[in-house]
Amino acid sequence: MGDSSDVLDFIRGINNLVPFNRRCGMEVISAEPGSVTLEMPWSGDSAQYSGFLHAGIIGALIETTCGFAAVTVAGRVLATHYSVSCLRPAVGERFVARAHVVKPGKTQVFTSCELYAVRQGSEKLVATGQALLVPVSSSEA
Amino acid sequence: MGDSSDVLDFIRGINNLVPFNRRCGMEVISAEPGSVTLEMPWSGDSAQYSGFLHAGIIGALIETTCGFAAVTVAGRVLATHYSVSCLRPAVGERFVARAHVVKPGKTQVFTSCELYAVRQGSEKLVATGQALLVPVSSSEA
Amino acid sequence: MGDSSDVLDFIRGINNLVPFNRRCGMEVISAEPGSVTLEMPWSGDSAQYSGFLHAGIIGALIETTCGFAAVTVAGRVLATHYSVSCLRPAVGERFVARAHVVKPGKTQVFTSCELYAVRQGSEKLVATGQALLVPVSSSEA
Amino acid sequence: MGDSSDVLDFIRGINNLVPFNRRCGMEVISAEPGSVTLEMPWSGDSAQYSGFLHAGIIGALIETTCGFAAVTVAGRVLATHYSVSCLRPAVGERFVARAHVVKPGKTQVFTSCELYAVRQGSEKLVATGQALLVPVSSSEA
Repeated sequence: MGDSSDVLDFIRGINNLVPFNRRCGMEVISAEPGSVTLEMPWSGDSAQYSGFLHAGIIGALIETTCGFAAVTVAGRVLATHYSVSCLRPAVGERFVARAHVVKPGKTQVFTSCELYAVRQGSEKLVATGQALLVPVSSSEA
Repeated sequence: MGDSSDVLDFIRGINNLVPFNRRCGMEVISAEPGSVTLEMPWSGDSAQYSGFLHAGIIGALIETTCGFAAVTVAGRVLATHYSVSCLRPAVGERFVARAHVVKPGKTQVFTSCELYAVRQGSEKLVATGQALLVPVSSSEA
Repeated sequence: MGDSSDVLDFIRGINNLVPFNRRCGMEVISAEPGSVTLEMPWSGDSAQYSGFLHAGIIGALIETTCGFAAVTVAGRVLATHYSVSCLRPAVGERFVARAHVVKPGKTQVFTSCELYAVRQGSEKLVATGQALLVPVSSSEA
Repeated sequence: MGDSSDVLDFIRGINNLVPFNRRCGMEVISAEPGSVTLEMPWSGDSAQYSGFLHAGIIGALIETTCGFAAVTVAGRVLATHYSVSCLRPAVGERFVARAHVVKPGKTQVFTSCELYAVRQGSEKLVATGQALLVPVSSSEA
């Protein structure tokens, strides 16, 4: 891919094609080769039963941002494994996920992500995660 | 908890309180002490960009079903870690997640889950996952 | 590979080539296409500071047995990711690890393993784990 | 714990009590509240069958260093879950593992680790990992 604004446009274009991401209000804030930042506003629709952000959506945010980071270096990819550590109750007006590529590769791309809850302007780390993605070109039919 | 129908009612009650689960159409099919089965219909809203089930929703289904299985033995819990292996493209008319408690405990409950895609009546294993949950009574304020 | 005894011989041959496995006393008990069982005697040399089996060796046993299971279906492989859940203190006269292939594949082989401690003839599940392996033929130089 | 040299002495003391760590030649290079660095020389005894560092020992190094980092903030702990990403073949004269506490807690301590291979004086990141540890005081009998 070309310069940074091309990368950002490209990732935003993909994000807009994914119904689930749109439904959750996920927005691509920045994207450059090897790293992507995603934001999502809090919504009562995304709650688990205690009123915190649902751990399933925490994982979806992490997996999505990791996937986009992998796309910036490897084109189309599929997630084959990811893990999520929920460090603290995820409570905030919005959530910011920052992912980067730890190690690119032809058969596997390793990525890592940190998820922050933003509350009255200050960020708190609420979850971390890692994802392993396979470029579609090298995956099985 | 009392007999199996009490457990099923209890887990269904929680599921109905979770906006995200309702929005996705998650339904509790069975629940007994130590194991829970959840079902979710396919919906275009749950797609990633290739038209398969979004890996984030795969994880949410696994994490949710694991959490419910833990609830049947430990009461209210919070997920602190989970991991998801996406074995095959998740394509089907509906998805069935079966979770069970691997090891209960006062401070940590270990659970495991298998996710099947149902297509024209036949099931195919599409993902597996594990979740670690902490009973709320023993978690930190 | 040919019949089951060929597979067993082949896996035993690899195990004997690995200094760490020999040093720990790891022995291949059974091997057939898709599944392998490994055994290791307890030794004071394998203790962590409480006298239980060291969590690092628990992981090594799980990773090794998963790797061997992958070899039975995919030839030479490299582990790229694995995870270990330590369910209970691992105390026993010997340890038995049983791994199987969950999903084979040209670029990734998914495996799973259960580790049992044997004490006075009875087995207890003490740890579980998953490993993702890449056939060397498809890995990067 | 008191000042940094007390912490270093304390962690070194534990390390010396663990037979497996001694056998592998693991040495505590630095330790302060929340972070620990461990070193291990290469040895043919630690090889897997291609001559790289055995993935099981990679995990053991990561788990051990994470555990020590947790000890600096939480006293005696037990690892309940850890995961290992093997990014590149681990080849070097020695290996340096750097772990830090991501989030301390009364019931769970989250840690993260990076493992570097040192070759002719230059370091290369070869693996990453995360471990979840439970303070013994809050674990089950």
